[in-house]
Amino acid sequence: MKGEFEFIEGIRTMFPSPEGVRGIGDDCAVIPQVQGQDTLVSTDMLVEGSHFLMEDISPYQLGWKSAASNFSDIAAMGGEPVGSFLAVALPKDLPEAWLDEFLKGYRDISNEYSFPLLGGDTTSSPDRLCICVTVLGKAPEGRSVTRSGAQAGDLVCVTGTLGDSAAGLQAILKEVSRTEEVPYLIDRHYLPTPRVGEGRILAADMGVHSMMDISDGVGSDLRHILEESRVGAEIDIRNIPLSCQLRTFCQRHGLDPVELALCGGEDYELLFTVAPEAEPSLEVEHTVIGRIVEGCSVRWTGSDKDYMGFRHF
Amino acid sequence: MKGEFEFIEGIRTMFPSPEGVRGIGDDCAVIPQVQGQDTLVSTDMLVEGSHFLMEDISPYQLGWKSAASNFSDIAAMGGEPVGSFLAVALPKDLPEAWLDEFLKGYRDISNEYSFPLLGGDTTSSPDRLCICVTVLGKAPEGRSVTRSGAQAGDLVCVTGTLGDSAAGLQAILKEVSRTEEVPYLIDRHYLPTPRVGEGRILAADMGVHSMMDISDGVGSDLRHILEESRVGAEIDIRNIPLSCQLRTFCQRHGLDPVELALCGGEDYELLFTVAPEAEPSLEVEHTVIGRIVEGCSVRWTGSDKDYMGFRHF
Repeated sequence: MKGEFEFIEGIRTMFPSPEGVRGIGDDCAVIPQVQGQDTLVSTDMLVEGSHFLMEDISPYQLGWKSAASNFSDIAAMGGEPVGSFLAVALPKDLPEAWLDEFLKGYRDISNEYSFPLLGGDTTSSPDRLCICVTVLGKAPEGRSVTRSGAQAGDLVCVTGTLGDSAAGLQAILKEVSRTEEVPYLIDRHYLPTPRVGEGRILAADMGVHSMMDISDGVGSDLRHILEESRVGAEIDIRNIPLSCQLRTFCQRHGLDPVELALCGGEDYELLFTVAPEAEPSLEVEHTVIGRIVEGCSVRWTGSDKDYMGFRHF
Repeated sequence: MKGEFEFIEGIRTMFPSPEGVRGIGDDCAVIPQVQGQDTLVSTDMLVEGSHFLMEDISPYQLGWKSAASNFSDIAAMGGEPVGSFLAVALPKDLPEAWLDEFLKGYRDISNEYSFPLLGGDTTSSPDRLCICVTVLGKAPEGRSVTRSGAQAGDLVCVTGTLGDSAAGLQAILKEVSRTEEVPYLIDRHYLPTPRVGEGRILAADMGVHSMMDISDGVGSDLRHILEESRVGAEIDIRNIPLSCQLRTFCQRHGLDPVELALCGGEDYELLFTVAPEAEPSLEVEHTVIGRIVEGCSVRWTGSDKDYMGFRHF
């Protein structure tokens, strides 16, 4: 294993700082502020054994996935990328090649979404790998889209399709045979694609009133918007967008795709509400799944099954 | 154990957001930027078994100490507090009372140094407690004091006294009897006092050319300034500031106080270099321990003992 300084020097070379920013190498990173902008910050921790198992996920996938949920949080506010900070506690017996692959995954998602690595911490762990990513974004002052702006009459929308990540996890845990739809679903679980570009486009539209990312399943995440906005919703379960890969997988394995879509986590799609007159001209692909109503409860229509009695897997 | 939402609501009440800032409760915290300011960011991870043992440190002390090294990083750049982010992975059997005490320690250091808690992550750990604190500060644009500005001729200075924290750790590990100097040294280890106010005063003085905080021992930390600034130094070991508590403790236990002062970690004092003409008027208590010279090596004078052959404890 390399020494700490050698290791940090290696990271410094692999992750150059953008012009005008002082990144890795001092007590703090230094990032110029701009009048009329807000700084957005989010942080997430992953611990081996709770959030991932070393034998199930490749180091490259883990590197990618470590940053994804944070980038998704910036997307959920409609933010623009600024940079990220990576803290890792490394077990002493972790092979150097493992770490190189992990950093490649982290670098690739950082480059893909233009979040440069600006600092972090490398330390040792007695046994389990522990990862904490903090991400900084920015948005025009007062124009971040929060969870609290939903208004009665708004349409409830989501980007992409839901449940693919949960199905991918099922495929991994149950070690199912690799039929044609499986690699897609596993990629959706291990290499999620936060909707950073989509979030910025949506945030620029004054008709978009509230937004968050779907990390625990739309069934449970929607409640955050409703509680913070003090409104209710009616959702038509038949409108929940499902990929054909998910449908095929569920048919093969006797699973209910709607259940995975409502209750499965880590989709990293966007859930937002928009004024009905603004919806048709939105420049982001999306699906209308229901609407915001007065009150404080959710009515799930379009199915006899009581999905929302279900909890996390 | 409380549910996650109840727990986060409790933290939200305990750590109110300052005026104009959106703290805990959305996908990201939102902090207004100000023209002419830089954002400073630092992150640190602590893992049970590597950085602390539950049986040696009280939850209150751990809460305090978790934030101290980060606040010290902001101090080291001469930054002003903005806020902090606390990510914790909690073992399932952690008593609620333990967590309450931990948060009290975190709240007290946050209030003491005016760093409001603006967000974080609470998640579960299979066994070991894992903590990651990210801290944000600000400084007038381009006026953060880095490690790279030391100039030949500068005086090398430190705030406070060195080695107390290392002596405190020895007292804890060796379970020595609680003679009168011991509580002071243990407090210096468990409840360190980052020099945030001092750092800001020093940074405002154009004569201060480089600065960092002493986290690994001045003997090893000084090298960072020298490497980044491409200079050398001459340090008179007789000038290293030692507390009388440290001297008493070392006399009692046959330890060398200078060794603890040079090689012991977690002092969280400031190490800085200043133009000789600016040094007498500095409005921060400090000790001159040497001077910066041309070249790339350190000469330790004033003792026959080869201290810098020593490494970490």
